[in-house]
This record gives sequence, C-alpha cells and structure tokens, in this order.
Amino acid sequence: MYDCIIIGTGAAGVSAALTLRARDKNFLLMGSASLSSKLSAAESVGNYPGLPSVKGAELKAAFSRHLASAGINITVKQVTGVYDMGGYFGVLCGQESFEASTVILATGVEAVKPIPGELQFLGRGVSYCATCDGLLYKGKNIVVVCTSKAMEDEAEYLASLASSVVYAPLYKGAAVKGDNVRYINDMPRSIEGGMRAERVVFSKETVPCDGVFMLKSALAPSALVPGLKAEGGHVAVDRLCRTNLAGLFAAGDCTGRPYQYAKAVGEGNVAAHSVCDYLAEKNK
Amino acid sequence: MYDCIIIGTGAAGVSAALTLRARDKNFLLMGSASLSSKLSAAESVGNYPGLPSVKGAELKAAFSRHLASAGINITVKQVTGVYDMGGYFGVLCGQESFEASTVILATGVEAVKPIPGELQFLGRGVSYCATCDGLLYKGKNIVVVCTSKAMEDEAEYLASLASSVVYAPLYKGAAVKGDNVRYINDMPRSIEGGMRAERVVFSKETVPCDGVFMLKSALAPSALVPGLKAEGGHVAVDRLCRTNLAGLFAAGDCTGRPYQYAKAVGEGNVAAHSVCDYLAEKNK
Repeated sequence: MYDCIIIGTGAAGVSAALTLRARDKNFLLMGSASLSSKLSAAESVGNYPGLPSVKGAELKAAFSRHLASAGINITVKQVTGVYDMGGYFGVLCGQESFEASTVILATGVEAVKPIPGELQFLGRGVSYCATCDGLLYKGKNIVVVCTSKAMEDEAEYLASLASSVVYAPLYKGAAVKGDNVRYINDMPRSIEGGMRAERVVFSKETVPCDGVFMLKSALAPSALVPGLKAEGGHVAVDRLCRTNLAGLFAAGDCTGRPYQYAKAVGEGNVAAHSVCDYLAEKNK
Repeated sequence: MYDCIIIGTGAAGVSAALTLRARDKNFLLMGSASLSSKLSAAESVGNYPGLPSVKGAELKAAFSRHLASAGINITVKQVTGVYDMGGYFGVLCGQESFEASTVILATGVEAVKPIPGELQFLGRGVSYCATCDGLLYKGKNIVVVCTSKAMEDEAEYLASLASSVVYAPLYKGAAVKGDNVRYINDMPRSIEGGMRAERVVFSKETVPCDGVFMLKSALAPSALVPGLKAEGGHVAVDRLCRTNLAGLFAAGDCTGRPYQYAKAVGEGNVAAHSVCDYLAEKNK
C-alpha cells in the first residue's frame, strides 16, 4: 500500500512528487517518461520565477534533472481508472492494479475534445485502452486514433492482434510498425454506427471498422474517477486541493484556469502537503 | 493611477509582477530591494521545481535576475496602510501615498518578534520550515520552539528525523508524540553560537543543539487593510486569490499554509490573472 499515487507528470505532478519526497513519503509518480507533451511544446515561458525566458523543452529538461537528482523514477503507466475503496484507492492500469491511501490527480487538460459519437459508443466499439480491450479485436479490422508518439507501442500491440489497422496520428513523425497498418493523415470527424460503432468519418473518407481505439495521453478526470465532482469541465477542489472524495486531491490544469506552470507547481505543492496532513490525521 | 500595486517582494510578489509584466500592465512592486529575508535565509530548498537543491540565496539571486531581465524595478517602500476608496485603492507609505485600481497583498507571514540571535543565525542552524530543512537534521539534536498547536504535525515530523528534540511550546496543551521528545516549559531568551547556532538559552537552563526550528503562527494581516476579512490569522481568499474587498487580492504565505515557494509562486500567478480579469471587467 503506497502513501500516495500521483497521476500525471506535468508541472503539477513533478512539484507534488518533489514535496512528497522531501516529506519522506512512499509514493508512485505515474505518467509519461517524457513528462508533459504540452510542456515540451511551449516556445518560451517568461513568467516562471527563477528561470527567465526559458523554452518549454529547457523547462522540461530542468524538471527531469530535478526528479533524477531527488531519486524519483517515473512509473510509466496509462491509468485507466481510479476507484474509491473506502479508506484507500485502487488505481487500475489496464490489467495491473495498485493501491494507495491517497491519490493526486495531475492529469492536465486534454487538448483533444471527444468527437461526436465517441462517448456514445464508449464500451460499444470505442475503447481508450489497448491493454484492456485489445484481445476483443483479435483478427478484426480497427481504427486507431492516437494523440501522442508516447503511445505508439500500444498501437503496435493492437496491430499485432488485429487483422488490419487504420492509424490516424494527431501528431508529427508517426512511426508505428506493422505490415497491416495503413496511415491516414486526416482528422477524424465523427464515429457512427447502430448498436455499436461501425465506421469512422474522416474529412476525406469514411473507414468501416469493427472497433475504434482512441489513444489519448490523458482521460477526462470524470471518466477516470467514478463519483468525482466536476465544475465547468474541471475537477472541483477547495484551496487545499481537496476534491469531494476524501483522500483524493487534484492539482494543475485539471483544476481550472489559469493554465500556467507557476500555478500548476503551486497546486502540486499544496496537494502534497494536504496528502501529508490527511495521512497524519488518518494514522492518529 | 496604477493598474496594480503589489505589496511584498517575496516569491508571491515576484511571480505576480512577472505575470503582470507579461500582460503589459502598469504596476508598482513595493517592498525590500533584497526581496524576502526569509527567502535569502533558507539553507536549502529541495522542492522548487526546476532548481534542484538550491540555496535560498541562490533562489533569491535567480528571482532578482529574472526581475531585472523583465525590466521590473522594486519600489523600496514600507507600506503603512491600504484603503479601499470605492473603485480604487489608496496605498500609504508613511507620508507618501499612491493610487491603484487593484492591490495584491503578498506580505508574507509577519514573524513573532524575533529573539536575540534568531535572525543572526537564520540559515545557519536556525530554520522556520520543517519541510524545507528537516532532512538536514536527520540524526541530530534539535530545539523546536512552536507558537501554535496547529503546527504540532511539523514538530512530529522533525522528531521522526532527529535524534533528540527539546520542544518548547509557547502555548498550552502541547501533545507532540515521540520517545525522543523532551518538553521544556520555559521561554527561549536567545540563540547563541559561533559560525552556527550552538545552543538556546532559556530562563532556567541552556540547551546545546545542532539546530533550532522556530515554528511560528501567522499574525493578523488585517492590521494593514481596514475591513479585510481574515481567517485563522491569514487573509481569507478564494481559489482565484480574491479577498472580501473587490479589487484586492492576496497571495503567498499571508493566505495560509503551506509556507512554500512553489505555493507562493503559484498564487502570485493566479492573483495577477485575477487582476487582469478584474480590470477587463471594470473597463467594459
């Protein structure tokens, strides 16, 4: 049982991890080994105090070095669900599960909004998780929409199972291996079907399929955590970064504007302190 | 008439200033030319993301360079009062007065009157922050002076690291756990030493030690601003750093715990964005 699992490796997750380390807690930092794709994409950040006119890639490198110097490893996992077990949390990553007394959501804001039909057919031909649902599509024809290079290994796993894959990367420099993979450089417009998803409509063509995988670097928090209260599309938190679920905290862009590194770093710090206070209270 | 006057040059004030500059606002940053005395005194800051294991003096220097590179000068004034004039604010500095549409309070936590030696040895054996400096005293003998029951968690955290703790509570009903904790019901008179703090002199005995933690609660900041709502000795703010007075915002240690650079920097950023939103709404 971990003291805490931090979900997300952007500015908020990094800040929370550094503070939990300073407080000698037993925790996992889960996310992408390359931290946040949004972070590395920023051209120039002028208002992160202490690092004047820093490029996003430089700030990302500074965060990586800081984690390394503090001895913090990133547990590279895609979290597919967080469940309040009454006193602790179950964190599912496909077929694997982890347990922790507390969770900090630092999942950022998913830039990609759901397309029409995506939520409607979720669980009926639409999946967010290759590991969870891949085997259902053995020998089938699927469409894979992917938002980040970091998830190409999941796409390759799907290609190893499916009969054919139409692969739509929403990023540059895609390199998914597989003889049965056809690339499509087009934006998906909608998912259509009857009882189940049957086809993906792109701008220039419509692709019939047995299933659709939407591989996203982050899921909407309300999709991730049953029972979590949201406000205006963000996780509802108080000044101590507490959500409506005891022991579950949230920090960074997922709690709302301004979407700023300084704000995310501050909330990560506050959430980590709230975790320590919560654990101290619980262990009395 | 300025768009904003920022009061305080610690981490929160610096962060607010950098963001107001990025948003091209007309503002004054008021405080000490040497920024925050607490900032420069910190022995080592491990959890300010991007700057690993930075000394307080180095972080202060980085903040100063950042202000300079952004062309922000500090207006070196001691603010003696802030008055809500209905639509704008009057900021008094002794005989001088300034006017601004908005004010950001970033005044930090007013220290209880320091005892002789406390400021002299700050950063050289004297610390205000268990989270920041606790690990430096693993296996050491320390004295902890604490002004409030609310901070007993921090004292227990220190006891979990230190070899021995002499605990001097300046309040009633102290209950800090730990086999290695000895209570002393006496007022600290002074801190003495050579290059570093070496002992605390109490009325009835002198305690040799490797370090001294002065855990202080906040004083009422409402002394500065008539009508300002406080909560538990801190400025009451919402998640957007708004106080009960329209146009008056607060950020950093003055809004409450945790007293951390990351948290202060985050709130300074949020307060500056709230100033921009307030001005945009007002000028509609």
